[in-house]
Amino acid sequence: MTITRLGRGPRMSACVIHGDLVYTAGIVAGDPSADTAGQTRQILARIDALLAEAGTDKSCLLRANIWLADMATFEAMNRVWDAWVDPEATPARATVEARLARPDYRVEIMVIAAR
Amino acid sequence: MTITRLGRGPRMSACVIHGDLVYTAGIVAGDPSADTAGQTRQILARIDALLAEAGTDKSCLLRANIWLADMATFEAMNRVWDAWVDPEATPARATVEARLARPDYRVEIMVIAAR
Amino acid sequence: MTITRLGRGPRMSACVIHGDLVYTAGIVAGDPSADTAGQTRQILARIDALLAEAGTDKSCLLRANIWLADMATFEAMNRVWDAWVDPEATPARATVEARLARPDYRVEIMVIAAR
Repeated sequence: MTITRLGRGPRMSACVIHGDLVYTAGIVAGDPSADTAGQTRQILARIDALLAEAGTDKSCLLRANIWLADMATFEAMNRVWDAWVDPEATPARATVEARLARPDYRVEIMVIAAR
Repeated sequence: MTITRLGRGPRMSACVIHGDLVYTAGIVAGDPSADTAGQTRQILARIDALLAEAGTDKSCLLRANIWLADMATFEAMNRVWDAWVDPEATPARATVEARLARPDYRVEIMVIAAR
Repeated sequence: MTITRLGRGPRMSACVIHGDLVYTAGIVAGDPSADTAGQTRQILARIDALLAEAGTDKSCLLRANIWLADMATFEAMNRVWDAWVDPEATPARATVEARLARPDYRVEIMVIAAR
């Protein structure tokens, strides 16, 4: 079974497709000067674009891992998430706090989707 | 291939079934007034119930991610885990410390199983 | 579909094979007296060995989760990772900081591969 890699760099790929499963990297904001809500919007737009390129969309989300630099921003992230996610097709999700690769990153989201 | 979602809410689902793979959310204790051992027991009972509803059981666990609010409770969690897990069918597991969504949550467990 | 478990202990397995998917545990250094670079080398050698035993190799990596005890070691870990990973076949990766099971563990890596 072939493996297709989108946004492939020498360290990691943004998205890997294998059979009917699509794995994204931990996606962070392109512009980390935004606040938690703004970073979440950027991340979810990037996930939409990766899923589209992989031939699927958010209605096929299976699992999501979310890391927040500060759990105090849980509700700010959730407001953007709740407006974005397909309420009929919500993934298995876990959200924990963790320091991220850069101090200005507030959120990181990694998903698995079907296609 | 159809996707079946158990315990589906507008934010997340408790469990998502796709083909022969079953993904649970990060499960936390229903009663977080319990200590680490008690929360772990509640979580594993909930995972048992979700796997049963998905048509499988803990002998088909593939992978588990465990988050502890305090790594000092590693052995307390492990005592409950070791008594629960099928010793002939143990998953690939990783346990790290992380602040969880509520300060009284001591443990969170997310699994992938086959069915 | 059968499930094959490598390095199976009563608590966890080092690697679980199900169909064409291979899940490793969160792998830590066998000798945690090494620094971050040394621990990363040990971990990646162990992952190479597990993937080989599972009938695959790093060119089939799909997803990687990396935990660092201290994000200040991000570049030290990346130097070893970049020298190891197949630049034509990089996985979807996420790296966050987390306290690990023992204070001398500096890195932990968990992967999913195809075979």
